[in-house]
Amino acid sequence: MTTTSADTAAFAPRSRRVPNLAAHISGAALLFVAAGIVVSAVVEAGAGGDEVASMLLGAGIVAAVGAVLWRTTALPRKQSAAATFTAVGATWVAAAIAGSVPFVLSGAFPTLDAAVFESVSGFTGTGSTVLDPIEDAPRGILFWRSMTQWYGGTGMVVLAVAILPFLGIGGMDLLRAEAPGPSADRLAPRVSETAKRLWFVYGGFTIVSMVVLAIVGLSPFDAVTHAFTVVSTGGLSPYNNSIAAFDSVVVEATLIVLMLFGATNFTLHWRFLTVDRGSYRHSPMFRFYAQVFLCFTVAVTTLHWIHDDVSIGTAIRDGAFNVATLLTSTGFGTVDYIQWSGAAQLLLLALMISGGMAGSTAGGLKLIRVRVLFHFARREITRVRHPRGVLPVRLGNDVIPDRTVDRVVGYALLYVFIILVGTLGLAILGSGVPESIGGAVSMMGNMGPGLGDSGPASNFLVYSRPARVLLMVMMFAGRLEIFPVLVIFSRLARRGRSARTQATDAARRSSDSWIDRLRRTG
Amino acid sequence: MTTTSADTAAFAPRSRRVPNLAAHISGAALLFVAAGIVVSAVVEAGAGGDEVASMLLGAGIVAAVGAVLWRTTALPRKQSAAATFTAVGATWVAAAIAGSVPFVLSGAFPTLDAAVFESVSGFTGTGSTVLDPIEDAPRGILFWRSMTQWYGGTGMVVLAVAILPFLGIGGMDLLRAEAPGPSADRLAPRVSETAKRLWFVYGGFTIVSMVVLAIVGLSPFDAVTHAFTVVSTGGLSPYNNSIAAFDSVVVEATLIVLMLFGATNFTLHWRFLTVDRGSYRHSPMFRFYAQVFLCFTVAVTTLHWIHDDVSIGTAIRDGAFNVATLLTSTGFGTVDYIQWSGAAQLLLLALMISGGMAGSTAGGLKLIRVRVLFHFARREITRVRHPRGVLPVRLGNDVIPDRTVDRVVGYALLYVFIILVGTLGLAILGSGVPESIGGAVSMMGNMGPGLGDSGPASNFLVYSRPARVLLMVMMFAGRLEIFPVLVIFSRLARRGRSARTQATDAARRSSDSWIDRLRRTG
Repeated sequence: MTTTSADTAAFAPRSRRVPNLAAHISGAALLFVAAGIVVSAVVEAGAGGDEVASMLLGAGIVAAVGAVLWRTTALPRKQSAAATFTAVGATWVAAAIAGSVPFVLSGAFPTLDAAVFESVSGFTGTGSTVLDPIEDAPRGILFWRSMTQWYGGTGMVVLAVAILPFLGIGGMDLLRAEAPGPSADRLAPRVSETAKRLWFVYGGFTIVSMVVLAIVGLSPFDAVTHAFTVVSTGGLSPYNNSIAAFDSVVVEATLIVLMLFGATNFTLHWRFLTVDRGSYRHSPMFRFYAQVFLCFTVAVTTLHWIHDDVSIGTAIRDGAFNVATLLTSTGFGTVDYIQWSGAAQLLLLALMISGGMAGSTAGGLKLIRVRVLFHFARREITRVRHPRGVLPVRLGNDVIPDRTVDRVVGYALLYVFIILVGTLGLAILGSGVPESIGGAVSMMGNMGPGLGDSGPASNFLVYSRPARVLLMVMMFAGRLEIFPVLVIFSRLARRGRSARTQATDAARRSSDSWIDRLRRTG
Repeated sequence: MTTTSADTAAFAPRSRRVPNLAAHISGAALLFVAAGIVVSAVVEAGAGGDEVASMLLGAGIVAAVGAVLWRTTALPRKQSAAATFTAVGATWVAAAIAGSVPFVLSGAFPTLDAAVFESVSGFTGTGSTVLDPIEDAPRGILFWRSMTQWYGGTGMVVLAVAILPFLGIGGMDLLRAEAPGPSADRLAPRVSETAKRLWFVYGGFTIVSMVVLAIVGLSPFDAVTHAFTVVSTGGLSPYNNSIAAFDSVVVEATLIVLMLFGATNFTLHWRFLTVDRGSYRHSPMFRFYAQVFLCFTVAVTTLHWIHDDVSIGTAIRDGAFNVATLLTSTGFGTVDYIQWSGAAQLLLLALMISGGMAGSTAGGLKLIRVRVLFHFARREITRVRHPRGVLPVRLGNDVIPDRTVDRVVGYALLYVFIILVGTLGLAILGSGVPESIGGAVSMMGNMGPGLGDSGPASNFLVYSRPARVLLMVMMFAGRLEIFPVLVIFSRLARRGRSARTQATDAARRSSDSWIDRLRRTG
């Protein structure tokens, strides 16, 4: 997955380091992963656990592999868009596999594939678990488990805000519409500078979350682990009962706010901190996002209150929390919504598909795409009365270019097709109908809980081992906005052909500039 | 629903007859409905039943209303596309309400709304029933119940092949791609001539079906009623166990062939009979349709055989029949597929959404739209490698115009949105999640059976009475390809405004020509 020796052999004589983007970036990522495992080992030592040695061994293995990859490769001079996607996908896969090493060595997971599943679920920000009971696992392992989500988030903010819009794939160029303003299209002229600013926001947000969670009563361990998984909208918790373990309205209210911030376009956070105190208010998409949260909270609360035997207070508390956790694709649990009335559940399922704002760590289709789809469909109604009219798709006052609309719609169709194929695949591999649908939707949206027996009160051990492999592929596809996964598969399929035919000149030009900038500045 | 007196009052002085397209066509339709009820009363008399008088009374009431509508109105000189849609929708609603009169008078249905539901289910070609047990109903009533489906089919072939493509709404102009050839776009230059030819095909197909079904062993009554409901891909049967009542492989195989013919584009039938013995073979969409049938039959049969405890013979028999009945949106039942494994059920659900060929009596999205959606999504994958390329959507060798593609995709999005809203509505009105999803998908596709408790072994009494009202609206929306229903609602909403603003000049021109032709030739 990480080597493309056939492609790069031609360039090797020019340098002792093999130019390979995927291997080079993966190597760097593994060094960071190793550092995280060391930190977790320190936590394990502090808790007086038994797994300090095995965790340090794991960190050593990961660091060694990472160092070899990093030192023997270099950034290539030229790269195609396809190669960039491959590199992004390969890095995520490499990090997820490396992240499972301490899980395997500690013996906390029954099988190798369960350990890999947990790590993939972590790095993709999904938050589904195969650990049961969670509380029995060593503290350091639980800490590292939270940290995988935080790492996934660091990769995601850069991918979502800097790389995907830059390559203009899948309609992520729509981000401009989410964060309008004088310097709308990019936070900074250089990708690496953008990445640094985003990491600053992400890091600051993490620290603020830790402090706030400690203030509302969480232990230091709980505050840190939950901060890691809330800013990344990941949703893993070191407790089997997830957030229900605290049984605190204040904690839940705090997490609602943090989750909602986590699924907000990060450029709005940066702009708020630097140039525009009204950045949220000035963004039509943020207002839409807030409206979706409020409307769904009212609707879910009302339906839950009417149909199920709960007090109005409980209905509001559980309604708001579950709308927030599924809208932001975090997936923390406080109650088992599988027990709720059908109508409330269907609204929650709709949120699992829509997801949060683009340019954030949220999963799902993203609200901006949902809105474009809605306007696209509404245009057909208008056309009944104006059959010959020119009817552009608008977002507020902006006309969306046809090409962008095509990409958004095409992406949404791909998204739905993958869910359909995934659902069918899970069913063929032995899952029931609700579990198949819930699993496919939840994995593509990097949500966490599914439906039926894989709901928030359960875990993903209900899926067969072959089914969990399919779930892992879908988590990657959802996290990476499908395209890198497709590119990797199509590259693997066409390995035998000439590397020259893999990309058009135009594609090469478009990504060259990005890679060149990274080389000059990094 | 049938009068637009405020709109038409301005034109009234020119003639003693009020010009009103909706009322005029509805009047004609009611006269045909009355004739059908008389025929059914004759059947009732032949069976020695007690409901002859009540049925003749019903026929008289319907005929009287129809005659008044027909005699007091005339075709208006000019009409907008919106008004044409309103007329089509109003006619269907009027016929369905009139069709329920004998159901009400005979006392075969417990409530008024149940009688209307059955009639709507009949005229829309859906085939869901609220009659239980079916065998207890008078023979004449059961005969009329089958006949409502046959009537619905006569309206559908004209709507699907002549009116919708002519107005170019929702991508039905794609029909050209389904039936290529020298005189591709229209069977005949005039809509009325087209309609006559289609009715000739439809009528001939009905008679052939009756004869064939009688040959394979059905009684005359069974042969006629099943011929009515198979050529219209409706699916009502006078037996509680539907086709399982015959327990005959030969009958099922015969019905598979008849259903598949019913969901074939009718222009192919006409061309086969007149100019081109190879019309089916020459149509790429027919080949695709045949491939879908074969592939899904193999897949469903295999999954059913592996996962469920059945012999290979039973798996093939039940697999082929259920794929055919759901692909063609007929909805006859032989077994309760709700008991099958999840994967086989999900494949059947996919067929309930896709439906058969456009230009037939089949429901669902229609295969040609599914194919366009698939190509649209695939284009985004191609774009990863060719980001700047011009990539038109193709169907075989034909490039589909962007405008047509937009309409197809917009229609599909509307279709899905209505299913989502309908599902939510059913859940709010008290249905369970599988029943809500199954009901919405089945009604939009004019399929018949749903999922869960509304599966093929059950009936639609499981839905609450308010839920059944929503189901009726969805049946109409599905049958009329959504647009007339939207136009009726938007016209009702804007009744107070000037009729002049309701359509652009362009829309008026486009439909004038159709109406003018109908006036000159009819």
